Amino acid sequence: MSVLIKNATIVNAEESRQGDLLVANGLIDRIAPKIDVPADRVIDASGNYLIPGGIDVHTHMNIDVGIAKSCDDFYSGTVAAAFGGTTTIVDHMGFGPAGCSLHHQLEVYKEWAADQAVIDYSFHGTIQHINDDILDEMASMVDDGISSFKLYLTYGYKLGDSDVLKALLRLNELNALTCVHPENDSAVNFLRKRMLASGQTDPIFHALSRPAECEAEAISRMINLAALADAAPLYIVHLSNSAGLDYIRLAQQKGQPVFAETCPQYLFLDMQRYQQKGEEGLKYILSPPLREAWNQDKLWAGMNDGSIDTVATDHCTFTLEQKRMGLGDFTKCPNGLPGVETRLPLMFSEGVMKGRMSINRFVELVSAKPAKMFGMYPQKGVIREGADADLVLIDPAKEVTITKEKQHGNCDYTPYEGFKLQGYPVLTMLRGSILVENDQFHGEAGQGRFIRRKQLDEKFRLRR
Amino acid sequence: MSVLIKNATIVNAEESRQGDLLVANGLIDRIAPKIDVPADRVIDASGNYLIPGGIDVHTHMNIDVGIAKSCDDFYSGTVAAAFGGTTTIVDHMGFGPAGCSLHHQLEVYKEWAADQAVIDYSFHGTIQHINDDILDEMASMVDDGISSFKLYLTYGYKLGDSDVLKALLRLNELNALTCVHPENDSAVNFLRKRMLASGQTDPIFHALSRPAECEAEAISRMINLAALADAAPLYIVHLSNSAGLDYIRLAQQKGQPVFAETCPQYLFLDMQRYQQKGEEGLKYILSPPLREAWNQDKLWAGMNDGSIDTVATDHCTFTLEQKRMGLGDFTKCPNGLPGVETRLPLMFSEGVMKGRMSINRFVELVSAKPAKMFGMYPQKGVIREGADADLVLIDPAKEVTITKEKQHGNCDYTPYEGFKLQGYPVLTMLRGSILVENDQFHGEAGQGRFIRRKQLDEKFRLRR
Amino acid sequence: MSVLIKNATIVNAEESRQGDLLVANGLIDRIAPKIDVPADRVIDASGNYLIPGGIDVHTHMNIDVGIAKSCDDFYSGTVAAAFGGTTTIVDHMGFGPAGCSLHHQLEVYKEWAADQAVIDYSFHGTIQHINDDILDEMASMVDDGISSFKLYLTYGYKLGDSDVLKALLRLNELNALTCVHPENDSAVNFLRKRMLASGQTDPIFHALSRPAECEAEAISRMINLAALADAAPLYIVHLSNSAGLDYIRLAQQKGQPVFAETCPQYLFLDMQRYQQKGEEGLKYILSPPLREAWNQDKLWAGMNDGSIDTVATDHCTFTLEQKRMGLGDFTKCPNGLPGVETRLPLMFSEGVMKGRMSINRFVELVSAKPAKMFGMYPQKGVIREGADADLVLIDPAKEVTITKEKQHGNCDYTPYEGFKLQGYPVLTMLRGSILVENDQFHGEAGQGRFIRRKQLDEKFRLRR
Amino acid sequence: MSVLIKNATIVNAEESRQGDLLVANGLIDRIAPKIDVPADRVIDASGNYLIPGGIDVHTHMNIDVGIAKSCDDFYSGTVAAAFGGTTTIVDHMGFGPAGCSLHHQLEVYKEWAADQAVIDYSFHGTIQHINDDILDEMASMVDDGISSFKLYLTYGYKLGDSDVLKALLRLNELNALTCVHPENDSAVNFLRKRMLASGQTDPIFHALSRPAECEAEAISRMINLAALADAAPLYIVHLSNSAGLDYIRLAQQKGQPVFAETCPQYLFLDMQRYQQKGEEGLKYILSPPLREAWNQDKLWAGMNDGSIDTVATDHCTFTLEQKRMGLGDFTKCPNGLPGVETRLPLMFSEGVMKGRMSINRFVELVSAKPAKMFGMYPQKGVIREGADADLVLIDPAKEVTITKEKQHGNCDYTPYEGFKLQGYPVLTMLRGSILVENDQFHGEAGQGRFIRRKQLDEKFRLRR
Repeated sequence: MSVLIKNATIVNAEESRQGDLLVANGLIDRIAPKIDVPADRVIDASGNYLIPGGIDVHTHMNIDVGIAKSCDDFYSGTVAAAFGGTTTIVDHMGFGPAGCSLHHQLEVYKEWAADQAVIDYSFHGTIQHINDDILDEMASMVDDGISSFKLYLTYGYKLGDSDVLKALLRLNELNALTCVHPENDSAVNFLRKRMLASGQTDPIFHALSRPAECEAEAISRMINLAALADAAPLYIVHLSNSAGLDYIRLAQQKGQPVFAETCPQYLFLDMQRYQQKGEEGLKYILSPPLREAWNQDKLWAGMNDGSIDTVATDHCTFTLEQKRMGLGDFTKCPNGLPGVETRLPLMFSEGVMKGRMSINRFVELVSAKPAKMFGMYPQKGVIREGADADLVLIDPAKEVTITKEKQHGNCDYTPYEGFKLQGYPVLTMLRGSILVENDQFHGEAGQGRFIRRKQLDEKFRLRR
Repeated sequence: MSVLIKNATIVNAEESRQGDLLVANGLIDRIAPKIDVPADRVIDASGNYLIPGGIDVHTHMNIDVGIAKSCDDFYSGTVAAAFGGTTTIVDHMGFGPAGCSLHHQLEVYKEWAADQAVIDYSFHGTIQHINDDILDEMASMVDDGISSFKLYLTYGYKLGDSDVLKALLRLNELNALTCVHPENDSAVNFLRKRMLASGQTDPIFHALSRPAECEAEAISRMINLAALADAAPLYIVHLSNSAGLDYIRLAQQKGQPVFAETCPQYLFLDMQRYQQKGEEGLKYILSPPLREAWNQDKLWAGMNDGSIDTVATDHCTFTLEQKRMGLGDFTKCPNGLPGVETRLPLMFSEGVMKGRMSINRFVELVSAKPAKMFGMYPQKGVIREGADADLVLIDPAKEVTITKEKQHGNCDYTPYEGFKLQGYPVLTMLRGSILVENDQFHGEAGQGRFIRRKQLDEKFRLRR
Repeated sequence: MSVLIKNATIVNAEESRQGDLLVANGLIDRIAPKIDVPADRVIDASGNYLIPGGIDVHTHMNIDVGIAKSCDDFYSGTVAAAFGGTTTIVDHMGFGPAGCSLHHQLEVYKEWAADQAVIDYSFHGTIQHINDDILDEMASMVDDGISSFKLYLTYGYKLGDSDVLKALLRLNELNALTCVHPENDSAVNFLRKRMLASGQTDPIFHALSRPAECEAEAISRMINLAALADAAPLYIVHLSNSAGLDYIRLAQQKGQPVFAETCPQYLFLDMQRYQQKGEEGLKYILSPPLREAWNQDKLWAGMNDGSIDTVATDHCTFTLEQKRMGLGDFTKCPNGLPGVETRLPLMFSEGVMKGRMSINRFVELVSAKPAKMFGMYPQKGVIREGADADLVLIDPAKEVTITKEKQHGNCDYTPYEGFKLQGYPVLTMLRGSILVENDQFHGEAGQGRFIRRKQLDEKFRLRR
Repeated sequence: MSVLIKNATIVNAEESRQGDLLVANGLIDRIAPKIDVPADRVIDASGNYLIPGGIDVHTHMNIDVGIAKSCDDFYSGTVAAAFGGTTTIVDHMGFGPAGCSLHHQLEVYKEWAADQAVIDYSFHGTIQHINDDILDEMASMVDDGISSFKLYLTYGYKLGDSDVLKALLRLNELNALTCVHPENDSAVNFLRKRMLASGQTDPIFHALSRPAECEAEAISRMINLAALADAAPLYIVHLSNSAGLDYIRLAQQKGQPVFAETCPQYLFLDMQRYQQKGEEGLKYILSPPLREAWNQDKLWAGMNDGSIDTVATDHCTFTLEQKRMGLGDFTKCPNGLPGVETRLPLMFSEGVMKGRMSINRFVELVSAKPAKMFGMYPQKGVIREGADADLVLIDPAKEVTITKEKQHGNCDYTPYEGFKLQGYPVLTMLRGSILVENDQFHGEAGQGRFIRRKQLDEKFRLRR
């Protein structure tokens, strides 16, 4: 099926231009100021922006966190993504059985996604432990298209500094990217115990038991370990606060290849949310937690000056019923909140329409840079002849108020309830096939494909 | 004439790829992993990098500085450029008669270049004074393809702060870019007088009479005035020192659209050069002057973290005989030194080959970003189908020692005498036509075209 | 008359200790853990802090600003000071007739103060213009005890950069301190004209016509000029904003002797005040204007890390009737507001009692460092045997709500109306004589003495 | 015995003044412009500086590091100190038997020092492990005059993050200061193993196996843990590099009470020393190691802007024979070098005489601030009536070339061999008794006293 998109403002990270675009065989066939050829479908995009499909490099679909299983699987989660203009996710897989190989979870997850995903997908490798077998196996994971791996400094499978060094050195050798969840495990556990011991069990104590310093400490630790590991490229996930950003900037100013991702929840929500009574405060329990509001300006500044490279979501959803496990003890509340559907709309409305960033920078943060950093560029992340026809039309005139009812995932609340947005995606296309149009879903389960990702581009070894 | 370039490593700012490239009708016709079509000329680029032609946005060809006329005109200067892999210059025109219109010098310069230039060219408008006529005329200059203007804070036609504000506001309104030569005129003159009065006339006193603080002061002044002028985009030319960079970073971290250019002389030469006796020290007299060597690392860091956007040259050549006017009185020495030919080779050898920057970042600094910032993208600055076939092949294995004899401009010395370089341009093509190959020049005077430049891309209003 | 103060917590910038203190002949005669000697008066200071009398190095008593004469003269102004725990002021004298000598205003002001002042006083020299006579005369001013001078970058007698350099060099030579009112005159005037031309005459436009960038620009200009003037020590008066502080920190980190003063109005009030209707907004018109509230945290941080050296007031009062001249045109409103009485109470309550600074740092900011920087130490600014018995008792338990009625100056409003303070001065002594006790004034006009100030301490040439 | 010192330039951290000083009963009895009373000894100090005796808060006398015992005991070490103008040391005690109480080493060390020390002394508590007994015992250590404790992040008794938190919280509660040796143990060991495995055993690999990032990481970790421990005051010992200083500054700018000490070896020596052949390179093996020379300017800047609070030595001496254990394997070389004698002379000559810091700042760094931070002020660290008469005369005209022969400790080399100094201590007095005069030693073993140190001054909880 061919599609001809006419009169669009075609936006890439580098530039915008007016023109027509022809889709054929799932690819972008041609871009030109004017294309007049027959097509199965002709779309008039006048007044709208045509951007490369959003890429969310931080989701947790179908994850089992031990005390609960998330309510979005690869179907509901990717349907929600599609409605929000996202056409590719790179999922952080949950932990497998203790001692399992790297491929164990990959196989499990590929199976899950194969039947369900309506958009394209890949996975980050999950490092649960380090030994020679794991270090060996990393090579075959990379061969299998998994060129980024995540390690944790807290939670059940946290790594010690020696293992972190081994992981960094090995992944550097393999041209793979090391991602890290940075929180100081000892400090968090120390504070949690202290709080529980004194009966401080309300949601606000979730935030107070993992203050910004827990995260900042782990960030600077990883930055220094990466520097020691022959300057291995390092990617900080879900940066939530200013102190961590300060450390990141110091490293980048020395030319160290340190990259950072932030998430909309840290840009639009703050710690005050935890003050709300009953289950309301539980909705926002995630790690790292929401911060004091003044951090938000700092994160925007970080996106402006290039210190922050990407915006992802950490989409990890639990129903209110699941969240209520945390009533009376915040440590019992499963961590996470929805975001995959609202990412592009929020960033477009609050970033672009409010003049905080150019539309090109928006595309860079939500699509182009994620594609580049995670080995999918230029198949993804750019509107260019030969690239996958993953395309999203945004109508800047469309006004939407976010409500639970209008969301398409399985989660029964949205943290952004009542946010009034200016501008919204009106059409989402995956490899030439329309997934969403006029608020209608036209895709089907299993339509998404696993993307074999390339190794880390050589240029990122020097950050740029 | 068609040219087929085979097996190249094709390098853009965003990415590198292996492939073939077909040139036809002066444009890049096709890029693909493999192209096998007949062509007038087939070039095997195995082992070489194919980059977009260099763009030097800061030259002074044929300039008359009052006490002397530079020794390179638009022929010799652009021939030198072509040998060094540069296919476009944007020249900063010299001052015209007092009170002259903006178009006056444009007409003069276009005439000079039309007959002589062997590469493409444009000009920055030169603001000598501000009044209503000049502010009006700026619009027609922009219409005529001149979308950037330079003002001076020192020299004969320095502007006061009110006039600077008027210029910034007006150019902002016109989507034109304000460039500035930042040095504090009063301070420089005060120090010069003090030095001459005490018989301090050797070349070193050139540097000591315009210390880094003279430049840094003017940079922060311009940054603040630009912020006051409704955040008008601002481009700092020839940044030479760390203190100025600190100010630039502070502004960028607030999201202010401030851009910076540095030049090879500030990266590879330092103040010690002025200690040399006789005419030797005079060779390096330019403004701002060479700085203490420790500033160099800071400038490299600025290129690494993105604070510095471009590398240009301030190419402005005088013969040793002309320079000798400064013997016994540094203020009598015409300011400037050659650079247009050595820019790409130096940056490639010392930047890319020594592992200080990726080749993509190199291309961004010397070609892509200059094209974007000065309204020539994507006609220039990128290897893409439809773009001008301005192409340069760099052979990373070629070793060259810079000597005066091997240079192609009219200047009878090079400040980089004896520098041993690893890697060198081996072929330069302008719009499909080979200008230089195997150290032979194949171009002809007048072959270059005037480039009408577009207005400043909207995205630069928000810096990114 | 001798006074024995028992059981005090004696606080200096360096340390606190418990003990007794004997005053005799106007001096501190003895300090010891326990003193039991007969005395004319014995004061039990149990539970109270005994600090050196406050020193306000930025007041404008009796000033004539052309469009109005301030409502506090040296009597009412110093009575107010005494009630607020301040025992010495260093006044910035108003401009004299065009072309007048430096001594002209000094004579005028000394005469005014001699009959009226109830606390000790000195003056900063006021530089209206620069020529050889003025540069010569600076030496005799210093001989006469005037070891600091102020120059303006805006207002009627602004100096150009060359004159600034001359002043800095000369004052450096004389070991005198250069103080500066930093605002960019051209920018302020440009913006004012633009606003008036478009009918923007409300108080808020006062702030908008002299944004932080106007001040920051002038600060960085002065910092660089001072560096060029052989690193002449520089003192920035009334720092109001974060951008200026950034520049100051950069200089200090290089070891440059740059010093900064802020004022309570910038710590406790913000731009919102100008939004109030009618005369209300006019109350807060002063220059530099109040800033966005977020700057306040930055200024507190600057006091914490030592970047800001002193807290003064810029006390310059006009009655509401005088202020009303600005109704309908903010440029007609005389600039200034009261502060000399509330400085210590505000800083103690909001700084010390709220845990933002130690009481030692409080004493350093409001008394010790001002004394050191302005040549009065250790006669003033320290509780030490042999020093002037300028002493203030602060009762940390006393609660006071600031109201106009409780103020003692001639101004008929206070910008801090309704502020609830914890802790307040309860006794003020000048050279052994009690000025204020139990809210009663016991001093008399003319009791204050002119303080001949010493030259700048050598150590401040290296900042520390 | 009474001593009258005439015509001295009396220097404190706050100020300098000319005058006479009378010593009686071991205390400073009187300071005045002119004192003419009979005295057992009259010293004419014309032309010399009289400063409070140096306080070296980081020595390791008589330490047994397992593979060797240092060659200076409390006699030879303190004799050397006295010759260098230091009258008090606070020694970091070596580890005791595993599991020993805090008092164990205190008793051992007090006994050693009692018989040997010729100057006053105290000790920092050494934390080898954390459990409830140790946490309890901290209180009695503080009662016994030990108000600072050191913990290690590397070496045999490194603490994990939870134990660090416990120590910080407890010491904060006790108003005691936490000192830390910051190096990342895992990283150091990882790198050492890697180096040894590849035969990299020369002295240079000592430095390369513990790069600046190892130290910087540990510094930022401790800063964040201290912030989490209710902002416990933190003292970083022997800061050697710029990256660590950056982290310290960030914390201080937030008002966090983080303090830093550097040592002369990091200001005057650099990594090049390790390149020397044979035993020469081993002389400089200490941890953290000497760094690249460019770090030195950064450390000087840190002293200038107040980020660095003290200069101590880490004096820990081994003979060349002992050092030679490291020939062929740097890990076998005992760590440490001499410094207690050269600290004041180096800082005075290179800091004060070369115009890098004021003499007041010099006194603050080497005596006043150490006394304040470690609970000995104003008994020590200041020239004031009532203080201990610990006094040093420095003759700025005396020229000394440092050689091994002129040193007074037991170490058979000095790392500063050949340094030419301008200015040198010519008289050292401890509590009124002359220890050194005219290069002659007049003291006796056991003359030094144990100083019971007070708890941390309240003001340091807010840094200032």
